[in-house]
Amino acid sequence: MKKLWGGRFEDKPSDITERISVSVHYDKRLYKQDIRGSKAHAEMLNKCGIISIEDFEQIKKGLSQIEDEIESGKFEFKRSLEDVHMNIESRLTELVGDAGKRLHTARSRNDQVATDTRLYIKDEIIEIKALLTDLISILVETAEKNTEVVMPGYTHLQVAQPVRFSHHMLAHAWALSRDLKRLLFALDIADSSPLGAGALAGVNYSTDRTITQKLLDFKSVNMNSMDCVADRDYMLDVLYFCSVCAMHLSRFSEEIILWSSSEFRFIRLSDKVTTGSSIMPQKKNPDLAELIRGKTGRVYGNMISLFTVLKGLPLAYNRDLQEDKESLFDSIDTIKLSIEAMIEMLKEMTVNKERMRQAVFSNYSTATDLADYLARKGLPFREAHEVSGSIVKFCETSGKDFFSLTLEEIKKFSDCFESDIVEILNPENSTERKLSLGSTSLSEVRKQIIELKNIIEKNR
Amino acid sequence: MKKLWGGRFEDKPSDITERISVSVHYDKRLYKQDIRGSKAHAEMLNKCGIISIEDFEQIKKGLSQIEDEIESGKFEFKRSLEDVHMNIESRLTELVGDAGKRLHTARSRNDQVATDTRLYIKDEIIEIKALLTDLISILVETAEKNTEVVMPGYTHLQVAQPVRFSHHMLAHAWALSRDLKRLLFALDIADSSPLGAGALAGVNYSTDRTITQKLLDFKSVNMNSMDCVADRDYMLDVLYFCSVCAMHLSRFSEEIILWSSSEFRFIRLSDKVTTGSSIMPQKKNPDLAELIRGKTGRVYGNMISLFTVLKGLPLAYNRDLQEDKESLFDSIDTIKLSIEAMIEMLKEMTVNKERMRQAVFSNYSTATDLADYLARKGLPFREAHEVSGSIVKFCETSGKDFFSLTLEEIKKFSDCFESDIVEILNPENSTERKLSLGSTSLSEVRKQIIELKNIIEKNR
Amino acid sequence: MKKLWGGRFEDKPSDITERISVSVHYDKRLYKQDIRGSKAHAEMLNKCGIISIEDFEQIKKGLSQIEDEIESGKFEFKRSLEDVHMNIESRLTELVGDAGKRLHTARSRNDQVATDTRLYIKDEIIEIKALLTDLISILVETAEKNTEVVMPGYTHLQVAQPVRFSHHMLAHAWALSRDLKRLLFALDIADSSPLGAGALAGVNYSTDRTITQKLLDFKSVNMNSMDCVADRDYMLDVLYFCSVCAMHLSRFSEEIILWSSSEFRFIRLSDKVTTGSSIMPQKKNPDLAELIRGKTGRVYGNMISLFTVLKGLPLAYNRDLQEDKESLFDSIDTIKLSIEAMIEMLKEMTVNKERMRQAVFSNYSTATDLADYLARKGLPFREAHEVSGSIVKFCETSGKDFFSLTLEEIKKFSDCFESDIVEILNPENSTERKLSLGSTSLSEVRKQIIELKNIIEKNR
Amino acid sequence: MKKLWGGRFEDKPSDITERISVSVHYDKRLYKQDIRGSKAHAEMLNKCGIISIEDFEQIKKGLSQIEDEIESGKFEFKRSLEDVHMNIESRLTELVGDAGKRLHTARSRNDQVATDTRLYIKDEIIEIKALLTDLISILVETAEKNTEVVMPGYTHLQVAQPVRFSHHMLAHAWALSRDLKRLLFALDIADSSPLGAGALAGVNYSTDRTITQKLLDFKSVNMNSMDCVADRDYMLDVLYFCSVCAMHLSRFSEEIILWSSSEFRFIRLSDKVTTGSSIMPQKKNPDLAELIRGKTGRVYGNMISLFTVLKGLPLAYNRDLQEDKESLFDSIDTIKLSIEAMIEMLKEMTVNKERMRQAVFSNYSTATDLADYLARKGLPFREAHEVSGSIVKFCETSGKDFFSLTLEEIKKFSDCFESDIVEILNPENSTERKLSLGSTSLSEVRKQIIELKNIIEKNR
Repeated sequence: MKKLWGGRFEDKPSDITERISVSVHYDKRLYKQDIRGSKAHAEMLNKCGIISIEDFEQIKKGLSQIEDEIESGKFEFKRSLEDVHMNIESRLTELVGDAGKRLHTARSRNDQVATDTRLYIKDEIIEIKALLTDLISILVETAEKNTEVVMPGYTHLQVAQPVRFSHHMLAHAWALSRDLKRLLFALDIADSSPLGAGALAGVNYSTDRTITQKLLDFKSVNMNSMDCVADRDYMLDVLYFCSVCAMHLSRFSEEIILWSSSEFRFIRLSDKVTTGSSIMPQKKNPDLAELIRGKTGRVYGNMISLFTVLKGLPLAYNRDLQEDKESLFDSIDTIKLSIEAMIEMLKEMTVNKERMRQAVFSNYSTATDLADYLARKGLPFREAHEVSGSIVKFCETSGKDFFSLTLEEIKKFSDCFESDIVEILNPENSTERKLSLGSTSLSEVRKQIIELKNIIEKNR
Repeated sequence: MKKLWGGRFEDKPSDITERISVSVHYDKRLYKQDIRGSKAHAEMLNKCGIISIEDFEQIKKGLSQIEDEIESGKFEFKRSLEDVHMNIESRLTELVGDAGKRLHTARSRNDQVATDTRLYIKDEIIEIKALLTDLISILVETAEKNTEVVMPGYTHLQVAQPVRFSHHMLAHAWALSRDLKRLLFALDIADSSPLGAGALAGVNYSTDRTITQKLLDFKSVNMNSMDCVADRDYMLDVLYFCSVCAMHLSRFSEEIILWSSSEFRFIRLSDKVTTGSSIMPQKKNPDLAELIRGKTGRVYGNMISLFTVLKGLPLAYNRDLQEDKESLFDSIDTIKLSIEAMIEMLKEMTVNKERMRQAVFSNYSTATDLADYLARKGLPFREAHEVSGSIVKFCETSGKDFFSLTLEEIKKFSDCFESDIVEILNPENSTERKLSLGSTSLSEVRKQIIELKNIIEKNR
Repeated sequence: MKKLWGGRFEDKPSDITERISVSVHYDKRLYKQDIRGSKAHAEMLNKCGIISIEDFEQIKKGLSQIEDEIESGKFEFKRSLEDVHMNIESRLTELVGDAGKRLHTARSRNDQVATDTRLYIKDEIIEIKALLTDLISILVETAEKNTEVVMPGYTHLQVAQPVRFSHHMLAHAWALSRDLKRLLFALDIADSSPLGAGALAGVNYSTDRTITQKLLDFKSVNMNSMDCVADRDYMLDVLYFCSVCAMHLSRFSEEIILWSSSEFRFIRLSDKVTTGSSIMPQKKNPDLAELIRGKTGRVYGNMISLFTVLKGLPLAYNRDLQEDKESLFDSIDTIKLSIEAMIEMLKEMTVNKERMRQAVFSNYSTATDLADYLARKGLPFREAHEVSGSIVKFCETSGKDFFSLTLEEIKKFSDCFESDIVEILNPENSTERKLSLGSTSLSEVRKQIIELKNIIEKNR
Repeated sequence: MKKLWGGRFEDKPSDITERISVSVHYDKRLYKQDIRGSKAHAEMLNKCGIISIEDFEQIKKGLSQIEDEIESGKFEFKRSLEDVHMNIESRLTELVGDAGKRLHTARSRNDQVATDTRLYIKDEIIEIKALLTDLISILVETAEKNTEVVMPGYTHLQVAQPVRFSHHMLAHAWALSRDLKRLLFALDIADSSPLGAGALAGVNYSTDRTITQKLLDFKSVNMNSMDCVADRDYMLDVLYFCSVCAMHLSRFSEEIILWSSSEFRFIRLSDKVTTGSSIMPQKKNPDLAELIRGKTGRVYGNMISLFTVLKGLPLAYNRDLQEDKESLFDSIDTIKLSIEAMIEMLKEMTVNKERMRQAVFSNYSTATDLADYLARKGLPFREAHEVSGSIVKFCETSGKDFFSLTLEEIKKFSDCFESDIVEILNPENSTERKLSLGSTSLSEVRKQIIELKNIIEKNR
């Protein structure tokens, strides 16, 4: 097939030139946005008197037919036509003749592809936003259903202090609520129209770029034609959002994996979200959590990929920029898949309250409260800390936990102890002694739930 | 020195334990924020009746003295005290005795360090914002001073169409104006107080975290104590901003390096921002641009560093998080240095209009206009493109540029050509034929300048 | 379809569980290695008396038929069967019944997939090695054909000293010859058999793993069954090789892009490896070089992806490891494509000797020689450097190059100058004054060519 | 201070130019290698008749004195002299006058800095090799001391099959033994001398680069002067080794953290390598393991940093390359610190055999053996797997482990069961039924120990 730029070319491209240049196998997924953008462009061209109403109608009809062909699987994408734009344009010309050729007036592939990817990002962000809000929502529900469950709170993966399971769930919800902000920021940046910028300098026609902006629901017009075709930072914002969100999901996945282990047994995942082994009959593997955690790798990698492409690239368009799309598609697909999988796991998760209770009771989680008790009785905190530490050590050596200590035994460490110490050592009471804003006490957890529900409401 | 957590410990840390744990050699730069945070915390403790007014006064005085000692270089940071917090707290206790010990009531190092780094980020963002605004400002000034200069616009580093030098400068200004948005987004996320969250669960005291929030000018309070100590996404936002900004600077630097080469000679950098060679007397190297471009590496690396640390980390605080600070400091320092260097280069840059003019005249940059001319005369664009391409080929073969063609010669390619073609081939005229919004025509460039000045104004 | 691990499972996997778990769409490309590994495994099982000769023969025949089916496009890979292994095993059982079921004795999917990917890597490395050797070879040929061409040598992208074009080509050849070493190192690490390690602990059968090792041409057997299934460092070595090689290619591509620009014009790429523009008739874009440079991004990203997956992963197999393959495949495909494209560009490159000559003559490239001349005449080098610098400055100001200076003019700067200075200023002579080993003189360049031909010979 | 390249420069560098250019604060750590390289260079210059024996003696003496001054802390590194090379050269000229000025004959800073960093890498690799061998050695010792200890082997962090603790330790030893190969590969690549290449083209003197090569113990001479100054892949090899090794250490650290948790309790770290909490008296945190795991971030980041710097950089030297050193130094320091910390932890680790035994006994780890038992009794494996799965399910529901099942109970699932099933269910017996090469059986573990001791021996 003769290329569109034959004038000064005598030889045809080498086979490797075609193989390394082709992008239609992945950019065809932009067909919807490409068609939508082209329709808007044609409408603008007509409104500005650049093409006739008949041409516009034909183009619109032709593009609609192509969309149908693609969606019904009848459209044949040809590698020889290199990318989605040329495939659609070529078919359009087949269908509507000269009108089709006039569509490309007053634009270039450089601004066209930027428009397509921006529209694509906007469409996807709406979907991701809904999924992310669902995930936050199920976290809040899970918290709400389990406000009374107390578990060990960890620092350094060592039992630190008792916390409510709901508090822990909400910590993840808050992190994800910030990701929602990142997502909306990415939307804001993407929401600016490059269409009509031409190859790099603007076009030799009296167009009105605000018409296509409005038709395509862009919030603004990018005001510098070189920036329109050279800029890819709107993609980085999406890749960055995906990376932070994947990171947050990886942290939660790690916990789900730990909690599902026979050593922790804090939760139980249902058969629907686990797999067995064809060899080991007892296995019940938290594959979804592992896959989500593992997929963090590709999401980070995709971001670094585009950052590398852009490093040191002079203006305006360079062919290197063709390398922007696969990483974008992959990160978006991955984050959607990961959020869906996380939602499903949470839905299918049984909280093992008893086991959590046992873990928080047997692990000296209230040693801090014990020290605080002594401090309130007048011991300097440093000394109280020391006494408390010694009791822990005694317990460990003699294989006891706090609740198998007799009052007599404990009194050997300090005369200050009285029978009310039993209350103090109870981890469930401990959470209620946390009085500060944002603490793990019931009333503070409830405040968080209300606050997060507001956020969910606003993002529905 | 006896550690503060001796109760259940018999052996002292190994030498390697101390060597790998120490952070004071880099976290000491948080001293200002640490002291500010501690003063606010003490004031809150007093207001809530947890410590006496005398204790508060002593603590305040002690901390002020320590700040003076540090700033006058008299303070000795001890590696044995591990980090900046312990160094300051230990000195405070030396100075004011028991009151000093009471300062750490109702907080932990986990929320303290998160507070310090957030305050640090807020302070730095203000400085970066001023620098970035200055850079955008000098770009706009440079554009304004050179609106009439026309240069080759490049795609694929091949001369594409004539553009105004000012238009090119403004393309960078727009990219940086989006970085300003990223910076303010990072500020917004960082602007939430974790102080008073305690180790992870809240504290056993009736504190009022909104007091410290207001004293420290935080916009909000982080409402989940586990999130307060586990979260580092506020740092990622800063590292990400730095990465995108460094990427933008690297693209501009690449151009400065190209333009300074003897092959391009579009600009001339002053002696103040170039270096010579001790061996090669003719050299005048654009070191600043190269260093800025090279520093992109460390900024990307720092971001990946923290992303890696956070991947798969369970809640709440883990010691891995100590690894968050050096990359943060380094990226912030680097981006400030890079912006400053870029400002200086632009100040010291001479624009070689003549050479740009020559380049845009000799490189067939108006071949598109030539084709458009034929199209307007009635040739189908495809054919016009072909004729135009053949003329370029003829010129190349015979060593001519468009302006050494005679009317006779050009007429051989098409009868449509008339004497007005000379006007068309003139690159300067070409820019004015770009009629679309955001194009490189003078009026559109002026619109951009006004718009960008508004943005600068708003960010001063 | 009932899963193979149904015993303790009641519910079927959720839809999202299946969607996130499936890998057959990409791991099917391992079919050849999977079949080869299975045949060897079956042969070993038979030799060790674990399965009968009839079973072995049936398995072998069945697998051969499956291979034919796949290669002729008749095989239907089913997503419900999740991965390539289950697809082949399931079809085998259809074809040969119970014998097929016995194939999986004494191995697990954990060691099977490690075997497949190692075999795949070994196959691919042989292909990459041939391509890389071809590339080095064409660089050496290009150097050999152009030994006499002199060009500006750059540091800081400023003209530094004259160098031979051949010397410059060979600099890239040497870098790539080190990549050949990296490739062979990766082969060495991959060349160890994990087959027969079982799920993680070894198997309950008297197998002989050295039989499969030899049948599959592995250099050694991995001696620790946990390491067999947990290790992925052999993949990192490949991803790392690809990254360094892509980096080297990106540096060369940058030069090709620069040299093809109208400002440099050092080379001319043929029509076969460039593209035009549908809008701008004069364009001839070095797309291949841009794509190679851009693809560096994905290759770096793929490496970071696997590094991220592996960070902090406990032994032995975790499902996260499923994320290892797509990045591996993509980097291997990309590096092969990039090397091929680079070969094609070099084949289709015209060296513009005249333009290089002009550039090296007009750019004071022999200013160092000028200073050396004065030094030889007795001036301290520092002073000689200063004089030489002043002459450059004079030339720049008065728009001259060294060769338009009269002897009179130059003598104003120092009495030492005599008529032999003309010889000195000639860049072609300058290269021959470089006497050191590895310099740009003709004899040293020739030595390099011989040495590199030996390396090529050894790697054919 | 007047720069050395003043000839064509009128203005002094701006303040920011100096601030962004300075490197002496970090490259001063190359002083030893810089001095060693300079001495060798001076000796070569003398042997080749380029400087006199007196000059050489003076230079040697001067450099020795400078080395003493630096090591005794008397040397003042001046930021105004920018880098370590200029600081030393300037002091040398102070000390020995004109002879010092002659030292820089026939070399440039470009080849000098490449020489220094290569020497530095060679020195460091020797130290790292010793540390790494020590670590492998202590792993082998730990394995040897605990050959009889059986623990749960995990896949998906679910108990899979019983393995020997020693086998698990050795899995890490094997991974690290491959890192030793990577380290020696990096040494091999670094071990080539660039000294004497000059700025990029070679030098105008009859030098003999093989003299400095031998004096500096380089295995070979880099034969292309442009490659000498442009290449940094030798650094990438080191950064890559560090990344893979850090990754391996992070995996082991993750396990140490898990095993130290109160849920696992498989090991106990000593007081020397753990820290407590100033608030929570019971805490004993595995900080070293967390820090090692966290430091993976900076090591990955450093590698990406240099990869980014090098992407798309044209030959030969560019100032971007100054950015190569800090990441190199940091990764080398970090990997040494991490290995040392890992050694110390292993030394200070108590293996809790009883707890491991309990974990492996209570977690159905022999369910595979149970299925194999039924298979040997004639049941198809698929059915045997199903029966075994049902027994696990029964146990879970009724709160039993395998050992609290009566023969009667188990017979309800299959008539095949007889009293010998007790033997089968015993995890310790299970490990001995693993008959394959590289399995977890005692004899195979012992083979590994012998093999690894050979590797250790060879690397001492």
